[in-house]
Amino acid sequence: MGRSVRVTVWNEYRHERSEHHPACKIYPEGIHGAIAKGLRVESDFEVRTATLDEPEHGLTDEVLANTDVLTWWGHAAHGEVRDEIVAKVHQRVLEGMGLIVLHSGHFAKIFRSLMGTTCDLKWREGNDHERLWVVEPGHPITCGLGEYIDMGPEEMYGERFDIPAPETLVFVSWFSGGEIFRSGCCYTRGRGKIFYFRPGHETYPTYYNDDVRRVITNAVRWANPTNGPVPTFGNTQPLEK
Amino acid sequence: MGRSVRVTVWNEYRHERSEHHPACKIYPEGIHGAIAKGLRVESDFEVRTATLDEPEHGLTDEVLANTDVLTWWGHAAHGEVRDEIVAKVHQRVLEGMGLIVLHSGHFAKIFRSLMGTTCDLKWREGNDHERLWVVEPGHPITCGLGEYIDMGPEEMYGERFDIPAPETLVFVSWFSGGEIFRSGCCYTRGRGKIFYFRPGHETYPTYYNDDVRRVITNAVRWANPTNGPVPTFGNTQPLEK
Amino acid sequence: MGRSVRVTVWNEYRHERSEHHPACKIYPEGIHGAIAKGLRVESDFEVRTATLDEPEHGLTDEVLANTDVLTWWGHAAHGEVRDEIVAKVHQRVLEGMGLIVLHSGHFAKIFRSLMGTTCDLKWREGNDHERLWVVEPGHPITCGLGEYIDMGPEEMYGERFDIPAPETLVFVSWFSGGEIFRSGCCYTRGRGKIFYFRPGHETYPTYYNDDVRRVITNAVRWANPTNGPVPTFGNTQPLEK
Amino acid sequence: MGRSVRVTVWNEYRHERSEHHPACKIYPEGIHGAIAKGLRVESDFEVRTATLDEPEHGLTDEVLANTDVLTWWGHAAHGEVRDEIVAKVHQRVLEGMGLIVLHSGHFAKIFRSLMGTTCDLKWREGNDHERLWVVEPGHPITCGLGEYIDMGPEEMYGERFDIPAPETLVFVSWFSGGEIFRSGCCYTRGRGKIFYFRPGHETYPTYYNDDVRRVITNAVRWANPTNGPVPTFGNTQPLEK
Repeated sequence: MGRSVRVTVWNEYRHERSEHHPACKIYPEGIHGAIAKGLRVESDFEVRTATLDEPEHGLTDEVLANTDVLTWWGHAAHGEVRDEIVAKVHQRVLEGMGLIVLHSGHFAKIFRSLMGTTCDLKWREGNDHERLWVVEPGHPITCGLGEYIDMGPEEMYGERFDIPAPETLVFVSWFSGGEIFRSGCCYTRGRGKIFYFRPGHETYPTYYNDDVRRVITNAVRWANPTNGPVPTFGNTQPLEK
Repeated sequence: MGRSVRVTVWNEYRHERSEHHPACKIYPEGIHGAIAKGLRVESDFEVRTATLDEPEHGLTDEVLANTDVLTWWGHAAHGEVRDEIVAKVHQRVLEGMGLIVLHSGHFAKIFRSLMGTTCDLKWREGNDHERLWVVEPGHPITCGLGEYIDMGPEEMYGERFDIPAPETLVFVSWFSGGEIFRSGCCYTRGRGKIFYFRPGHETYPTYYNDDVRRVITNAVRWANPTNGPVPTFGNTQPLEK
Repeated sequence: MGRSVRVTVWNEYRHERSEHHPACKIYPEGIHGAIAKGLRVESDFEVRTATLDEPEHGLTDEVLANTDVLTWWGHAAHGEVRDEIVAKVHQRVLEGMGLIVLHSGHFAKIFRSLMGTTCDLKWREGNDHERLWVVEPGHPITCGLGEYIDMGPEEMYGERFDIPAPETLVFVSWFSGGEIFRSGCCYTRGRGKIFYFRPGHETYPTYYNDDVRRVITNAVRWANPTNGPVPTFGNTQPLEK
Repeated sequence: MGRSVRVTVWNEYRHERSEHHPACKIYPEGIHGAIAKGLRVESDFEVRTATLDEPEHGLTDEVLANTDVLTWWGHAAHGEVRDEIVAKVHQRVLEGMGLIVLHSGHFAKIFRSLMGTTCDLKWREGNDHERLWVVEPGHPITCGLGEYIDMGPEEMYGERFDIPAPETLVFVSWFSGGEIFRSGCCYTRGRGKIFYFRPGHETYPTYYNDDVRRVITNAVRWANPTNGPVPTFGNTQPLEK
């Protein structure tokens, strides 16, 4: 109430700078630019961006310490994200920073290390049509949506998605080619909340879609840290009776 | 180990006795007959059947007391199942009896009273094609299956399915008409295990399908009561130190 | 944001009107009075109360239609709550109204019908000391708390608590006599959120405790309906491709 | 049915070889010796042991490939377990091998990497008395138990236990000094099942306790791989209609 939500939008930002890649035209200001623009509509959000090729990937200690919720898009260069930065982000999530993992971010080091699984899946580029069905209409991430999001053409992701069962499964995707996918998945790790959201291939204008923006905005609010207790660990005395 | 699993296959058994109904030809021995036949292949299963129009719906105290796992198929006559029988079945589930709820059984009084929700859903008869994707390949109910069950034509059930989030979601269905459905759902209520399994419209030969039979057999084994503690309730003394 | 949260505090209100009952002195304005007072501190809450002996138990259609979150305390007269009122409250929860069930409300018809289990437990009045440990410090219901709430003397509730496994287990109680209890339990049923919170025997001034008030306030915010989709059910057409 | 369960009991095996350490007298054949003895009572278990100071920590490719369920006890030398062996064990769990993590194994590299959290907790050696309450009496791991296990004196572990919320919480411990602990926790990662079980400090004869042995035996049966589908990942063709 009253306090801003400080959001950092992280992006690999390689495809969009590659002249002949379709992403170059679709996202001239980068995928992070499109996501940040959608979030800046909210008057209580303070939004900054950070990208792979900035020093420390744009995720300095100071940036991380002042981030309430981090969104993550990566695809081709997961291996270039330095392990010590991943470790810092991981630590911040456990301390309470929210994390929204988008689309091909399923294979990001940070997501895999938080999940403990391969996070592998089936995929197909081509002629699929996607619909995301809401299976938990009471969840705050669905605020303002209809019964499903009609994405139109998108890259297909199919099960088996090798993740731990979500604490809450919010969306399930239908693809015209015959697959389904758990495409909106909530987790808690430490004091931090994590939301994986499927759509967002770089060759489609997904992050301009109103419903997609609504979901990301809702997810930021949901993942914003709450002021619960900071646990203490280690050797302890018995409580007085 | 060594002890038999005593299964009671319950069926409404109305459509199949109606001369002009397609179910009459598909299931000449009733849906219960087809399901029981699939289960009797297992040498350690003792299988009996019970139907709505038998006295006490075939679910006498003696039958219930000697049932480890009950399977339930109903559709048109949920309202004719007597409340006092439903209460007895409910009580037996809480005591540990397994319950496998099939297809249109989603609207059975026993399922609704165990779930606490309407269990409503979308549906369509016609030209849909169904595939059930395994999303938890480590779950015992998936033993012996491939990555998906290809059902071919079936009635469509679509989300929102108004159930509590399953403790374990094992299958998600894809339908060619554009819908998805949580079609294999595990619950525990009291000491009893419950599995809802979607396929099985009376106008399709679903219960002759090898994979469907495998799932029901696996589910019976999974829901078979384990010999855990019988809780005591009420006023109690402090434990000695 | 901006809109009030309309809270109705329901109470059986019998013990407190019984001259020789300790609750008469501890809660001269009723348990509902104490709970409502704690909630009225929040400037964006609109709080009203309702009690068993009012017409329709104070839960008219108009009151229910204008309630975002209902809190429920009952103990000795669960059986006097009329089934048709319970059915209306149940329906409203499925539609999205939040429900906070307090202490002996575990045996209320509304809680049992939403859970599908007996909701039975062990109990003891006497010399127990209770501590509620936070096991999910990232959950919004723990906002502002320390690592545990020290209740001091309270009635003991012990496991086995015959409930479905909570979707989120927030608190676990320790009792000096040797028992533990899952004392903060989150559920979703339909579009409605439900929180069971253990403390609050009528012979202790529990509802004046700052931490207890904080938990109930947090729970009201958590259970406040979000504006997700209203599902449609029934026969449906295939989606156009 | 009919096939043996191949169990490998892994132990750090340092305390017990230290002449002046109490574990030396309590576990003259090592903690692994005591655990293995308890498991060998089962006629369908094939039990071997492996320890830290053996080549490859006793966990060669051949041993891992022929292990259905691995139990893990470690305490003082977690850091000496080589990362490449941890990676192999991790991979085998995702492929379906069961893993039973015991007591101070909460800090083992393998458990932390599977959980994605610190797995930290509170602890105290001294005069605590532990009782483990069964909260899910329908779970197969509770087969043959009473309502609680009275451990008598044990090391205390207290919340906050920094783990992801268990898929199933089976036991909660009560400690006389004032703490509680989620002491029996079930997970699935990949196709593998994981059970964390709290008791077992090296200065107490915990692994000779009949109930503790029963729990470990039950957990091995529960975690034994089932023959579900082996997922395929990567680029895939649309399914034929």
